[in-house]
Amino acid sequence: MQPRMFTREHMADAPRHMKWWGWGYEDAEFRASRHPGFWPYAKSVLDIENDEFSSREWSLQSINLPEARADERFLTTLRACLAPHQITNDPKERVIHSYGKGFRDLFRLRHGMAAGAPDLIVYPQSERDVCLTIRAAAERDVVLIPFGGGSNIAGCLERMDPSRMCVSLDMRRMRRVLSVDERSFTAQIEAGVFGPDLEEQLSAYGMTLGHFPDSFLHSTLGGWIATRSAGMQSDKYGKIEDMVIAVRMATPEGVLQTRVVPKSSNGIDVNHLCIGSEGTLGVITEATMRVHAVPESRQVRGYLFPEFEAGIEAIYECANQECMPAMVRLNDPEKTALSLAFRPPASGFTKVAGSLFKSYLRAKGLVQPRACLMLIAFEGNSRGVSRHLRQAEAIYRKFGAAGLGASTGKSFEATKYDFPHIRDFLLDRDVTADVSETATVWSNIPTLYRDTIAVLREEIGNSGVRPFAGCHISHTYPSGASLYFTFGFRQQPGHEIEQYLQVKRAVQQSFIDHGATLSHHHAVGTEHLPWLAADISPLGVQAVSAIKRSLDPADIMNPGRLSPSSNPMEDWLALSSPPARREKSRECR
Amino acid sequence: MQPRMFTREHMADAPRHMKWWGWGYEDAEFRASRHPGFWPYAKSVLDIENDEFSSREWSLQSINLPEARADERFLTTLRACLAPHQITNDPKERVIHSYGKGFRDLFRLRHGMAAGAPDLIVYPQSERDVCLTIRAAAERDVVLIPFGGGSNIAGCLERMDPSRMCVSLDMRRMRRVLSVDERSFTAQIEAGVFGPDLEEQLSAYGMTLGHFPDSFLHSTLGGWIATRSAGMQSDKYGKIEDMVIAVRMATPEGVLQTRVVPKSSNGIDVNHLCIGSEGTLGVITEATMRVHAVPESRQVRGYLFPEFEAGIEAIYECANQECMPAMVRLNDPEKTALSLAFRPPASGFTKVAGSLFKSYLRAKGLVQPRACLMLIAFEGNSRGVSRHLRQAEAIYRKFGAAGLGASTGKSFEATKYDFPHIRDFLLDRDVTADVSETATVWSNIPTLYRDTIAVLREEIGNSGVRPFAGCHISHTYPSGASLYFTFGFRQQPGHEIEQYLQVKRAVQQSFIDHGATLSHHHAVGTEHLPWLAADISPLGVQAVSAIKRSLDPADIMNPGRLSPSSNPMEDWLALSSPPARREKSRECR
Repeated sequence: MQPRMFTREHMADAPRHMKWWGWGYEDAEFRASRHPGFWPYAKSVLDIENDEFSSREWSLQSINLPEARADERFLTTLRACLAPHQITNDPKERVIHSYGKGFRDLFRLRHGMAAGAPDLIVYPQSERDVCLTIRAAAERDVVLIPFGGGSNIAGCLERMDPSRMCVSLDMRRMRRVLSVDERSFTAQIEAGVFGPDLEEQLSAYGMTLGHFPDSFLHSTLGGWIATRSAGMQSDKYGKIEDMVIAVRMATPEGVLQTRVVPKSSNGIDVNHLCIGSEGTLGVITEATMRVHAVPESRQVRGYLFPEFEAGIEAIYECANQECMPAMVRLNDPEKTALSLAFRPPASGFTKVAGSLFKSYLRAKGLVQPRACLMLIAFEGNSRGVSRHLRQAEAIYRKFGAAGLGASTGKSFEATKYDFPHIRDFLLDRDVTADVSETATVWSNIPTLYRDTIAVLREEIGNSGVRPFAGCHISHTYPSGASLYFTFGFRQQPGHEIEQYLQVKRAVQQSFIDHGATLSHHHAVGTEHLPWLAADISPLGVQAVSAIKRSLDPADIMNPGRLSPSSNPMEDWLALSSPPARREKSRECR
Repeated sequence: MQPRMFTREHMADAPRHMKWWGWGYEDAEFRASRHPGFWPYAKSVLDIENDEFSSREWSLQSINLPEARADERFLTTLRACLAPHQITNDPKERVIHSYGKGFRDLFRLRHGMAAGAPDLIVYPQSERDVCLTIRAAAERDVVLIPFGGGSNIAGCLERMDPSRMCVSLDMRRMRRVLSVDERSFTAQIEAGVFGPDLEEQLSAYGMTLGHFPDSFLHSTLGGWIATRSAGMQSDKYGKIEDMVIAVRMATPEGVLQTRVVPKSSNGIDVNHLCIGSEGTLGVITEATMRVHAVPESRQVRGYLFPEFEAGIEAIYECANQECMPAMVRLNDPEKTALSLAFRPPASGFTKVAGSLFKSYLRAKGLVQPRACLMLIAFEGNSRGVSRHLRQAEAIYRKFGAAGLGASTGKSFEATKYDFPHIRDFLLDRDVTADVSETATVWSNIPTLYRDTIAVLREEIGNSGVRPFAGCHISHTYPSGASLYFTFGFRQQPGHEIEQYLQVKRAVQQSFIDHGATLSHHHAVGTEHLPWLAADISPLGVQAVSAIKRSLDPADIMNPGRLSPSSNPMEDWLALSSPPARREKSRECR
């Protein structure tokens, strides 16, 4: 059977950009009226008395956008190669491409700081466009930063060096599924495709990639590969690195490409030089990915465990009994309370959970209940799903869990991509909220969890405010799991960044001190760079830098990432310089 | 739960070496009396009339061992650091460490050619010993070639450069399981441990690595990792690269190490710079591996399919129905005939298969039957094994298979590590036999199989002799499988190497021309180096070379591998220079 060629042409309607001041499209936001319990909960937990916040008008006028550098010879070459609509220095576009969506990113833009803004945005429509842009940039020492959906929260996207012209290479117009080999379950896909668009194209073949990160609506295949992303259903489908069969990556030295073969023994696996390269070596232009038949059945369920440890034991036993769900998300008591506060009014979730939670909900506030909410999903053929679900539920019951039924699952499905909006809502109310996630082996989970929560509470408390520190477990493996910490606190006016950095540093240091990794699926970026050498050893950093020097000798590809300086912590602390210390800037038109 | 420390001390009894003239220990060989059908079958297939072969006495006297280079300052440093029994230049040891076990390797030694011999063998007992040896070698420009079991058949082990002193770093004394984390199913293991020793140590914890390559008895963990090995049960446990959690690799620049975490997003995955590095960057000293509870149940079965294509369809459907066995080995008609000829006399296999095969066996000889033998194994808990076996058997029946019962499986289990001995038996009889294996996607398997068999037959036929060219499929994945070709033919006296190279080149070129990979699990070595750039693209080679230059700037680690010259095919053809063209040599003591 020959691979089918995908011919649909849809270059024109490239996905919209997210709002520059927060998560999601401009017409999407967290609506307190749909989550009436959330703000009262947050006020109580974070000790907020004030309810008066000036409603903010997000205007580009407020942004100090640095003057755009322009290398005329570079621009002339570019204009000769690309169409006018592929090149822009529109101020709004520059602001949108300044940063990802980490706390520091949003805080800076919301306070008029746009030092990370590129001078130009280029929209390639083919690998040829990418190669031409790279060649032109290399000739004129212009920096290129590949940009997918702009959803990164590890600081992968901002310009680091104001002294060189900087171009954001926005990949969203390279969005076609080029071919699908239905016999082999592989699909050759352009790297700029967004999650929903990709799934829609694959569904024409009855296929799915099975990769659904929280950022699914606003992130791209190339971004997933460059950052070693994980989707919610990673327990069944793997992390993105487990799905890559072959890649094409355009670099300043040419195009690196690998073969469409399931496995090989061809020396060092060159796919893995591209995966996780975070834009430092080149631009991933396309990848051949393992795909799957759309599952016949999908069952999502919620359970309440008497305590976090019981939930962990249940997950662990499922892993050992070979009845792991496609998705497992176990909240600790704090994240459980947050999830319950987030629920829509009068939803099925509330109805079912209501009676079970009654006593807990009464106690909510200063004294957290110990009960923990777990969400799971099984996917596959109907018989297999039913059998595994029965098997898993028997294990859950053994550990004291109460089932919350399918409506909890439905409620989760309906809102699963909405969580990131909360942060904007909180930022509007002078609350800092962010996440740090890691992975470790099973034997280390209890200690890492306990100590990191303690560190978070202490460090937040040190700034004189009440802490929120919660955690959920997801992305489980036979040898361990990912721990995803969420933290929040009232801002110290005038010291917001310093306050955040204190906390972020403490949590990352806790990961490293406990033998865990700097990130399980959010990338290194600038936010985790100070811990890279501890994670992969100084010699690992040296080897990665050597690949960089070979494929990008002029250091034009996303400079500064994956190559920490001699004092990365100092760089890290200095990154978000206050407006007074910023380089020459001008008012935005 | 804390990891248990393994304290047993067993440094003294390091595994024996294989015989230098063939596979296995000196007291193990292919015994024709135990396989009475084999030689008549081979004679018939390969058109051999003569039955008179001079029995060969393998004497070291016959070997022209090059004079051992000795850098006195290097030796002085080494003697100061290591114990006398860790260093040797004994001629037999030098011969044993000359080569791996590929056709060219064995043919050369059997004809007195030992240009690949190292000058010295060092047996490190700790990572410290490895580091000291590397440092001493770097200071004196001495070449180091890591040596595990010496079972490699891709030419990874011979010295390439006679102008520098060369040391074989034999890792077999670093063989301890250092710790087992029973909660997380991980084990920290020294790299020099052999398969049986490793499994014995792990079994004390009720664990198994699940890695059983054909070379299991004579290969090491470090060798598996350095070459991206695959075991027979890879369908369940994965290839070795899927089992590595963390590594330690000693290089001329220091020790590279990664963390014991299940997954990460810490940039380029540094584990994958060590995996597949084939000794070119440093010495893998230990690895933390994913391990598994020893399965409760194991069922091995044989089936006879009416033709190869039907067997392929059955495997494919099992992959899609999620009832893949831990092992699948489907022989084409030629390999089926070979397997049947290999069977011991009056074994259970023969008894059961006898009636089914009656008509086929009668027709055996010039006209091969189309029937194909498939061997499978399921492992796991008893209920799961039974369920999956039932499910798979229903699929096999659908494709016309007849079950051969458990006795076929038992027969396979009893002889599964014996196949490599056949080659020695054939070499004794002036028959060349070797293998080439690859992997491709499902849609490409029929064409690749058909064309490669045709190429093999044609190329062998071109040398004026009758070809044996067979194939089996093993190591299956959702997207494809490995195809393992076996070929054999009568030697052209005086042109044995050229004849082999013609055939080997044709089969490798066929893989590359058909989009497959140069090897699925045997490594690049020297034997596949001419096809590396086509496989991973020239830029992939460039990146790999950059890592090499960074970690081994003086190029002392296994030079010449993974870094093809400008004319790798010429180098490849020139490798096995006849005695007359060899560098200065002397009679062996």
